[in-house]
Amino acid sequence: MSRIPLTPVVEALPSTVPFVGPEALERKRGVAFRARLGANESGFGPSPRVIEAIERAATGIWKYCDPENHDLKQALARHHGVRPENIAVGEGIDALFGYAVRMFVEPGIAVATSLGAYPTFNFHVNGYGGRLVTVPYAQDREDPGALVDLARRETARLIFFANPDNPMGSWWSADAVAELIGKIPETTLLILDEAYGEFAPDGTLPPLDTGNPKLLRFRTFSKAYGLAGARIGYVIGEAALVKCFDKVRNHFGVNRLAQAAALAALADQAYLHEVIARVASARQRISDIARSNGLEPLPSATNFVTIDCGSDGAYAKRLLDGLISLGIFVRMPGVEPLNRCIRVSSAPDTELDLFAEALPQALRSLG
Amino acid sequence: MSRIPLTPVVEALPSTVPFVGPEALERKRGVAFRARLGANESGFGPSPRVIEAIERAATGIWKYCDPENHDLKQALARHHGVRPENIAVGEGIDALFGYAVRMFVEPGIAVATSLGAYPTFNFHVNGYGGRLVTVPYAQDREDPGALVDLARRETARLIFFANPDNPMGSWWSADAVAELIGKIPETTLLILDEAYGEFAPDGTLPPLDTGNPKLLRFRTFSKAYGLAGARIGYVIGEAALVKCFDKVRNHFGVNRLAQAAALAALADQAYLHEVIARVASARQRISDIARSNGLEPLPSATNFVTIDCGSDGAYAKRLLDGLISLGIFVRMPGVEPLNRCIRVSSAPDTELDLFAEALPQALRSLG
Repeated sequence: MSRIPLTPVVEALPSTVPFVGPEALERKRGVAFRARLGANESGFGPSPRVIEAIERAATGIWKYCDPENHDLKQALARHHGVRPENIAVGEGIDALFGYAVRMFVEPGIAVATSLGAYPTFNFHVNGYGGRLVTVPYAQDREDPGALVDLARRETARLIFFANPDNPMGSWWSADAVAELIGKIPETTLLILDEAYGEFAPDGTLPPLDTGNPKLLRFRTFSKAYGLAGARIGYVIGEAALVKCFDKVRNHFGVNRLAQAAALAALADQAYLHEVIARVASARQRISDIARSNGLEPLPSATNFVTIDCGSDGAYAKRLLDGLISLGIFVRMPGVEPLNRCIRVSSAPDTELDLFAEALPQALRSLG
Repeated sequence: MSRIPLTPVVEALPSTVPFVGPEALERKRGVAFRARLGANESGFGPSPRVIEAIERAATGIWKYCDPENHDLKQALARHHGVRPENIAVGEGIDALFGYAVRMFVEPGIAVATSLGAYPTFNFHVNGYGGRLVTVPYAQDREDPGALVDLARRETARLIFFANPDNPMGSWWSADAVAELIGKIPETTLLILDEAYGEFAPDGTLPPLDTGNPKLLRFRTFSKAYGLAGARIGYVIGEAALVKCFDKVRNHFGVNRLAQAAALAALADQAYLHEVIARVASARQRISDIARSNGLEPLPSATNFVTIDCGSDGAYAKRLLDGLISLGIFVRMPGVEPLNRCIRVSSAPDTELDLFAEALPQALRSLG
């Protein structure tokens, strides 16, 4: 029997699993990682009140979620000082990126991003047949001026810009981002990824302006709120633009326990601030460990530290493999020159102790 | 500032929330429903072992899921006697329908379904610019022969066929489905929705044939396993075809607690069979209540009973509104002549007691 044809766009896509999870590496190694420092998850976990909320909600898991995410949107609107109509909730920031790309990108449409920036966004652009155009990072930061020039030159419909950035941990001031927003070309929408926004110093996130129809700001409960496995994120923007997500989103797609967890997480701002402080300490410790091993930690406004290993991508990869073979899960940027670095997520001291122990071992074994 | 253009396909879509959830009705009414009988959820809930598994997994929610869904695929493969490569797991059957449609449908591609069949599938077909072509139900069942003829006539790339069917609860024998599978036109793929399969009598689901590249079978943990709010489902098919889901799926999209819950649910087949027996009793009871009020329950192989109200859609809608005003959440089919019916989900006796009390009241108020 013959195969039914896929669409040309989908036919052209690879069937590989694009991002290898730590569990896959564990299955390959036959043993669990001792420290999980590779996915920028929050080893500090969510608030104890979130766990209580999940336990309370568990027996109601036979019910579909509220497809309007009403209560969470109300709470987020209060928290951010916007209207519920300015918020769309989705099953994780990756799903929301997927919806945004689907809304604006079709074959031939150009999308501007930085070479080495968030690969899942690129996965979606490729997935809808978009044409990715890139500029390099400048001094390990995304380069807003170059992105705007590129978008104008290529008539890009979307610009992707993360502030703070993953995988480098770098950031721009709110003023610089406001300048970028002011220069967005006439035919372009800015996808502003603020997944790590809660960790950034004051003055990093520009004020919310829900009157701008050329800007969508993406947030998540996966990082500072410690809910990566819950799959819940949101987007903030102009009401008519945000409303368009209803055209394409999976209306009943959010896990009911995730809704309860996100509500409880948002309500416990004291815990959030505690986590932010612990992350700051952990960043300091990771930086100290790097320096004491002769490596250079980059400044970070996120929950991870990107460490310059002082050589090329091949060297960093060998160091990464060494750490993995010692049971330390870390990751590294995918493209030059960023791939001279490895990326280490903040975590409780017990896990950083293991990193501190493993790093010199891994370095020694490289000779 | 001018708006950035959506793609023409997305621009043409409505921005409405397509399916009103019971929570939205509750907010409108200002009071909670007394009985939740409208969404074919399982009021019997999941196995107690599932609740335990969720509670055990809760503190690990800071971790992303295993993007390969390895353990669940292994368990499902053992359960169904197929290979893990024949299974793709996704964040609910609706997401999997969305991926399947995205893989095969682009503007102009025809998709054949039954007029009044599962609307979320149609939402996806419209969402990717497909051209829905339909045949009516025949005696309240989907009409496989007419679907095949239609697909051939319209060169449809997909046929959607649910067995058992929602919203009518009707079903075909495994032999009839095998005959349908044998007659799928050369250029067509069959989307076989078996969301309600666990409730159907023996001899309803044809044996699994993972050698057929023209067939995808969709299953869910939302119905018999009582995990609607978890958002986890799976598809079974030929390995190379199933592999194509990796091209487009949200690899980290499944909730980590949902993975744990699904594994525990699958492991407790004794509980599943208990639920199936309780659903059978509840169907009987709903049917008895209908008959004792002069209404005609249709035979059902699902976890709901569709009740012929003996008149037209307007009459059934008034009865439905009456039930809702009495705090009983039920739904009804959307198109003629199916919309002469209301649809009542099985549930524990306490909720069916309320339905038994409300139905005669609602009928009396219609005069």
